[in-house]
Amino acid sequence: MRVVMTGGGGFLGQKLARAILEKGTLNGPDDQPAKVTELVLADMVTLTPEPSDGVLVTSAKVDVSDAKSMSELITPDTASVIHLAAVVSAQAEADFDLGMRVNLDGTRTLLEACRALDHAPRFLTTSSVAVFGGDLPDAIPDDHAPTPGNSYGAQKAIGELLVGDYSRKGFVDGRVIRLPTVVVRPGKPNAAASSFASSIVREPMQGEEAICPVEAGMPIWIMSPRAAIKNLIHAHDLPADIVAKGRTLIPPGLTVTIGEIVEALDRAGGEEAIQHLKWEPDLNIINIVGGWPGGFESVRGRELGFQSDASIDAIIQAFVEDDMVTHEE
Amino acid sequence: MRVVMTGGGGFLGQKLARAILEKGTLNGPDDQPAKVTELVLADMVTLTPEPSDGVLVTSAKVDVSDAKSMSELITPDTASVIHLAAVVSAQAEADFDLGMRVNLDGTRTLLEACRALDHAPRFLTTSSVAVFGGDLPDAIPDDHAPTPGNSYGAQKAIGELLVGDYSRKGFVDGRVIRLPTVVVRPGKPNAAASSFASSIVREPMQGEEAICPVEAGMPIWIMSPRAAIKNLIHAHDLPADIVAKGRTLIPPGLTVTIGEIVEALDRAGGEEAIQHLKWEPDLNIINIVGGWPGGFESVRGRELGFQSDASIDAIIQAFVEDDMVTHEE
Repeated sequence: MRVVMTGGGGFLGQKLARAILEKGTLNGPDDQPAKVTELVLADMVTLTPEPSDGVLVTSAKVDVSDAKSMSELITPDTASVIHLAAVVSAQAEADFDLGMRVNLDGTRTLLEACRALDHAPRFLTTSSVAVFGGDLPDAIPDDHAPTPGNSYGAQKAIGELLVGDYSRKGFVDGRVIRLPTVVVRPGKPNAAASSFASSIVREPMQGEEAICPVEAGMPIWIMSPRAAIKNLIHAHDLPADIVAKGRTLIPPGLTVTIGEIVEALDRAGGEEAIQHLKWEPDLNIINIVGGWPGGFESVRGRELGFQSDASIDAIIQAFVEDDMVTHEE
Repeated sequence: MRVVMTGGGGFLGQKLARAILEKGTLNGPDDQPAKVTELVLADMVTLTPEPSDGVLVTSAKVDVSDAKSMSELITPDTASVIHLAAVVSAQAEADFDLGMRVNLDGTRTLLEACRALDHAPRFLTTSSVAVFGGDLPDAIPDDHAPTPGNSYGAQKAIGELLVGDYSRKGFVDGRVIRLPTVVVRPGKPNAAASSFASSIVREPMQGEEAICPVEAGMPIWIMSPRAAIKNLIHAHDLPADIVAKGRTLIPPGLTVTIGEIVEALDRAGGEEAIQHLKWEPDLNIINIVGGWPGGFESVRGRELGFQSDASIDAIIQAFVEDDMVTHEE
């Protein structure tokens, strides 16, 4: 089967591509495992994917909001579309038009390209904890209405509705996973308002300075990259008749306070790590992230077999094993 | 103040225009009553508005999804925009592209025209009970997530999110009222899937045949045109700081079964009316309307002073007084 992934150059895209190539199969239209024969990594930039035995892995340089390139990308033999391309939260807040173009128009344009096919491809995309903001219960029920407090969250909530309706119409077989804040992200800080949540572990563990812009008591709903990848594949592979009962899927994340993350950092990296952490409140960040909820009930997500991380210590350990860059090398 | 109304030729638009002209004022940017000096009725067709003492009432023939005509319509002195133009439910279901263009792109294009102003105009629009479908509680809580079962409902739910985010960004001072099914609509049946709910009263009371396509036990959440107009003006005039706490407003509607409507028809029109009613199940209608919820808690809507009708008998009486066409004339 041919699989197309947008945002294929992002950190989740890269990890998901590796996981798919290792696994070798994804569920096809009959809900049975099918061999992945072609994986197209689409992004704003040209990628140089590593070759893979028996799988054609290619790069496509595209703009997701451009109808022509999307219709060329989604060829008639495309069985699955995994849509990860997005403008992240602080960037979408700073540049409203860019966020609308990529996060809203891009999703719609890609759905339209799928609609033009003779069959309804599987369509997996991500939503976010950012669809919620403001006064909320401590643990948000599965059926709580989105209350976005920033444009990224509004665009993601609109994406959920679009995928739902395009699926109901039979244009795609859609599934949207509302991801927690993914911690610890590898690499450099990005323009997500939640970027600090990874930085406060990643940089100190790597012997670099990090700034924590929020207070220690703030709860945050997180998931490791490992669990996120497992849950993305799980969402992709869920049977069509199950997701038809509700296409927005809420996996169980882990609720921790920033202070608990720092305590785990101390356990993992000791004083050598902790000394690299500075506390400097940033109202811009607090205004965006402070409104995000600390937890979700995720009743249906658990029933459907989505997985949570065991602890913040396990999350940091996974980072050390998978992604930590040691400067001694 | 200059007020622009899209869908100004529709039945709600016409009634709302008359109500605004009778009232003479609407709340302005300072939340204080301001004299309405100009009322522009925008629609797909050219209207011939009745002249009004001291108020310039004009017609504008526009396509709401056309950016150029929207930017011409929303002149710099526009204080209020009332957006009623929409493709109704059965039509949006039959023609997906038309529904997306008018209901989604139209709302966004109009919001963009408002954003281009130096000030944030008041922006009132309608959402619908159709944002809900499927398995739902008997009385839907205020914070229940939309679960649209048709494209019209999805487009309205997206409109709620757009108005919310454009308001949060300070581009408009938005307010969205989720209207129940408006019963009894005057005039002819339309392409709304719920059109029958008016027909089963209107036609028999006027000595004409009507077909009821759903079963007597089906509950429906309704509001008279009189109450809808009062609630629209109330939503428009609510103070900015109140609506900022939640811009999707759910007025208390009346929950009745189709059978209860028919019993009230009997009380109002007797055997002469009842004999004009035929029962013929229509699966298309049942599939769309049958999924709509029968009731809402409307806790905040009541607190904010929105009004419900006293009874189905009062609703039919209002129709007789305001809109019934008697063929004896």
